[in-house]
Amino acid sequence: MARIAFGRFNDSFSLGSFKAYLAEFISTLLFVFAGVGSAIAYNKLTSNAALDPAGLVAIAICHGFALFVAVSVGANISSGHVNPAVTFGLALGGQITVLTGIFYWIAQLLGSIVACFLLKAATGGLTIPIHSLASGVGAIEGVVMEIIITFALVYTVFATAADPKKGPLGTIAPIAIGFIVGANILAAGPFSGGSMNPARSFGPAVVSGDFYDNWVYWVGPLIGGGLAGLVYGNVFIHHEHAPLPNDL
Amino acid sequence: MARIAFGRFNDSFSLGSFKAYLAEFISTLLFVFAGVGSAIAYNKLTSNAALDPAGLVAIAICHGFALFVAVSVGANISSGHVNPAVTFGLALGGQITVLTGIFYWIAQLLGSIVACFLLKAATGGLTIPIHSLASGVGAIEGVVMEIIITFALVYTVFATAADPKKGPLGTIAPIAIGFIVGANILAAGPFSGGSMNPARSFGPAVVSGDFYDNWVYWVGPLIGGGLAGLVYGNVFIHHEHAPLPNDL
Amino acid sequence: MARIAFGRFNDSFSLGSFKAYLAEFISTLLFVFAGVGSAIAYNKLTSNAALDPAGLVAIAICHGFALFVAVSVGANISSGHVNPAVTFGLALGGQITVLTGIFYWIAQLLGSIVACFLLKAATGGLTIPIHSLASGVGAIEGVVMEIIITFALVYTVFATAADPKKGPLGTIAPIAIGFIVGANILAAGPFSGGSMNPARSFGPAVVSGDFYDNWVYWVGPLIGGGLAGLVYGNVFIHHEHAPLPNDL
Amino acid sequence: MARIAFGRFNDSFSLGSFKAYLAEFISTLLFVFAGVGSAIAYNKLTSNAALDPAGLVAIAICHGFALFVAVSVGANISSGHVNPAVTFGLALGGQITVLTGIFYWIAQLLGSIVACFLLKAATGGLTIPIHSLASGVGAIEGVVMEIIITFALVYTVFATAADPKKGPLGTIAPIAIGFIVGANILAAGPFSGGSMNPARSFGPAVVSGDFYDNWVYWVGPLIGGGLAGLVYGNVFIHHEHAPLPNDL
Repeated sequence: MARIAFGRFNDSFSLGSFKAYLAEFISTLLFVFAGVGSAIAYNKLTSNAALDPAGLVAIAICHGFALFVAVSVGANISSGHVNPAVTFGLALGGQITVLTGIFYWIAQLLGSIVACFLLKAATGGLTIPIHSLASGVGAIEGVVMEIIITFALVYTVFATAADPKKGPLGTIAPIAIGFIVGANILAAGPFSGGSMNPARSFGPAVVSGDFYDNWVYWVGPLIGGGLAGLVYGNVFIHHEHAPLPNDL
Repeated sequence: MARIAFGRFNDSFSLGSFKAYLAEFISTLLFVFAGVGSAIAYNKLTSNAALDPAGLVAIAICHGFALFVAVSVGANISSGHVNPAVTFGLALGGQITVLTGIFYWIAQLLGSIVACFLLKAATGGLTIPIHSLASGVGAIEGVVMEIIITFALVYTVFATAADPKKGPLGTIAPIAIGFIVGANILAAGPFSGGSMNPARSFGPAVVSGDFYDNWVYWVGPLIGGGLAGLVYGNVFIHHEHAPLPNDL
Repeated sequence: MARIAFGRFNDSFSLGSFKAYLAEFISTLLFVFAGVGSAIAYNKLTSNAALDPAGLVAIAICHGFALFVAVSVGANISSGHVNPAVTFGLALGGQITVLTGIFYWIAQLLGSIVACFLLKAATGGLTIPIHSLASGVGAIEGVVMEIIITFALVYTVFATAADPKKGPLGTIAPIAIGFIVGANILAAGPFSGGSMNPARSFGPAVVSGDFYDNWVYWVGPLIGGGLAGLVYGNVFIHHEHAPLPNDL
Repeated sequence: MARIAFGRFNDSFSLGSFKAYLAEFISTLLFVFAGVGSAIAYNKLTSNAALDPAGLVAIAICHGFALFVAVSVGANISSGHVNPAVTFGLALGGQITVLTGIFYWIAQLLGSIVACFLLKAATGGLTIPIHSLASGVGAIEGVVMEIIITFALVYTVFATAADPKKGPLGTIAPIAIGFIVGANILAAGPFSGGSMNPARSFGPAVVSGDFYDNWVYWVGPLIGGGLAGLVYGNVFIHHEHAPLPNDL
C-alpha cells in the first residue's frame, strides 16, 4: 500500500527546496550530457555504424560513471534522484512529497533538454540519438525490459540510500546506483536501449523532435520504479525489523 | 574442521528469515538478469559470432557490476549471498545454519530461473545461453578452473564481509566481491565460462532445457567455496588473533 | 560573487606548503604519465590508426583510474587538485589563496612536462600526442565542450570534496572526481579530446613543440572551472543551509 | 635516508606471522591466476593474435580488479603487499622489518609459481605468457618504464595505506592500489608489459622455463618501489606535519 504524502505547500517553496531543484537540474544535465554524448561519440568514431560490443562497453561505462557522479554531487542537496522514475518510486515509498516530486520532475526534464541543446551546440549540430526499440523488439517486450531494469535501479536506491538501516552501505550507494545502470545497459542496450529514466529519453526526443517510441520510456520506468518503491517500502522498510538469520 | 550448525527450526521461519529469502530471490534475479542478459546482448549485436575480447570485457564488467549491486542491496537483509557456493562456504565456516542455508539455495535457484524466463519474455524468445565448457576444455580442467576461481570469490567474501575483524574494509566488501567475479571471468571465460555460482548456471539450463555440462557448475563451485570456508574459517577467524608483524 | 583571498605571504612558503607543491608535482606527473601513455599505447598497438571505440574506452578508463589515484595520493597533503582549472575554481570559491594557487599551477605544469619527457625516454622517442580539435570541430565548439565538461569536473570537486557538509561522501570523492573525467572523455574525446585540464594539455605541447589549439585547453577549462566555483561556492556553500525537502 | 629495521628474530616466527605469510601466498596466487589467466584468455580467443586495444582493456581491467581484491583480502592479515617491490619499498620506508620482508618475498614468489602451475592444469597445458619487452623497446627503456610505473604504485601504497594520517582514505586504499596498476598497464602494456611486480613476472618465467628479460622486472620495480619508499617515507611521513595551506 502506497504511503503518499502531499506535503505542506510552503515546504516545496523554501530556499532549501529551490536549491534542491537547482541541484537536480545540474545533476541531470551533467549526466545526460555525458551519456548522450557517448552515443554521439560512437556515431562520430564509426561514421554511424551499427552498435558493436566495444561501443556498448563505451556507452554503458559512460552512463554508469556519470550517473554515479550525478547522484554523488546531488546527494547532500537534493538526495540525487536525477531520474523521474526514482522520484516516483520514492514518492510511492513515502520518501518525498508529491508536490516536491513534481518540481523534481520539472528540474530533471529541463536539465535533460538543456543538456541535449548544449550537445547540439558543442558538436556542431550533429544528430542527437533518441532511445527507441531495436529492430525486432516489440512494444510489449520493450516495456517489460524497461520495467525490470528500472525495478533493479530503484530497488538499489532504496536498499543503499533510502533505507534508514543502510549503515556504512550508504557510503558506496552512489557507486551502486551508477553501476546497476551500467550493468543493465550492457544487457538491455541492444533491445530497448536501456533507459530506466524518462528524463534521459525525453531530452533527446525534444531536441531532435522525434518522439517515436518515447512513451515506452515513460511507461516502463514508471511501472518498474513504482513497483520497487512499493515492494521495498512495504516489505523491507516499514515493518519493524525482526532479527536476521545471520549478521554477516 | 567444519563448524556446521543446524540451527533451531523456528529461527528459519521467522518474519526476518522470510524477508531474507525474498531478498536473496530478488538479488539473484537482478544479478542473473543482467549477467545472462549481457551474453544475449553480445549474441544479438554480433549475430551469434564467437566471443571476442571486446565481448568478454562487456560480459565480465556486467557480471562484476551487477554482482556488486546484488550483494549491496541484500547486505542488510540477507547478507547478500546471491550464490549457493557462497552460502555453502559460509555454512562450512560456521556463519549460517544448514536449515537457513537450504532456504537460501531455494530462493537463489528460483531467482535465477525467474530471471531467465523474464529474459525470454523481454527479448522476444531469444536463446538463453548456458554455461558449458569451451571446445578443447576437458571436464577435469573445467572443474579445476571453477574450483580455483570460486575459492577466490568465497575467500573474498570471508575476508571482506564475514570476518569479524574486517573493520572499514566492510564498507567496500560488495565492490570486492563483484570485482573478483569480473576479474575471474576475464581469465576463465574462454575456458569454463567463469560461473563460480551454481544458481547463475542453473537458471539458464532450466529455461533452455539444456543441462549439458551443468554438473561442472555444481561440483567446481561447491568444492572451491567449501574449501575457502574451511581455510578462512579455521585459519584466519577462529583462533585468537596474534599480533601482526606490522599494522599497515 | 567571488571571494578571492590573496593570503599571507608566509603561508605560501611554509614547510607544509612546499610539501604540498611537491605532492601536486608528483600527482600530476603520475596522472599525465599514465594518461598520455595510454594514447601512445593506442598509437603503438594500431600503428597510428584513427581512434576506434575500443581505444576510446582504453584511454577514458586510464584517465579515470589514474586521476582517481592522483587525487587520492595528494588528498591529505595538497588536497589533490592535479589540475589548474580545479585550483582556479577553488580560488574563486574561496578555498585556496591566490599566491598558493600560483605555486600549485607551477607544480602542476612542471609535473606534466616532466611526465612527457619521461614518456619520450621510456618509449624510445615516440611522438607525444597533443590535444587538438578533431577535424570538423570548430574553435567555438571546442571551447564550449571544454567549458561544460570542466564545469562538471570542478562542480564534482566542490560537492564531494570541498563542501564542509560533504559527510561520508568525502570517502569516495576521489573516485567520483576520476570517474567524471572518464565519463566525459567517452563523450568529448572524439570532439575536443576531453582535456578538462590545462596541465594535461600543456605538457605534451611543450615536449612536442606543437602548441596548435593549445589555447582552447586553457580558455575552456578555466571558464568552466571558474563557473563551477562561483556557482557551487555562492549557491550551495556560503548561505546558511535551510532544511532540505527530504533527507534521503 | 632509509630507516631499515631488522626486527627481532622471534617476531618473524610468531603464529600471526605465519598467518601473514599464508595470506600473502594466497593473495598473490589469486592475483596472478586472474592476471596471467586474462593474457591466456586473450590468446585463446584470438588464436594468439597480436595484442589489440580491446585486449589491452581486458588485461588491464583484470589486473586492476584482481589486485584490488588481493590487497583487500590480505589487508587485515598481512597488510596485503602481494608484490616484492611493495614489500621492499615499505622496508625502506621503515614499515616492515627485513626478516619479515624476506618471508613475504618467499610467500609471494611461491604464490605466483603455484598460480601458473594451476593455470597450466586448468587450461589443458596452454603456454603461460611471460613478461618481456615489446619489439623495438630497449632494455634501458623497459627499465625506465618499470621504474616510473612502480614508483606510482608504491607511492600510492604509502599515501593511501601506510601513512598514519591517511584517515578515511584508508577505506578506499585497495581500490586505488588496484586501479593505478590498471591505468599503468593501459599505458605501459605495449612497451614493457606493465609488470610493476617481480612476483607477477617470476611465476610465468619459472613455469614456462623462459627467463628472457626477467631481470628487467626485478631491477625496474625494485628501483621504482624503493625510490617511492624513500621519497614518501622521508618527505611526507617522518617530519612532523606542518599546517597545510588549505584543508580541502
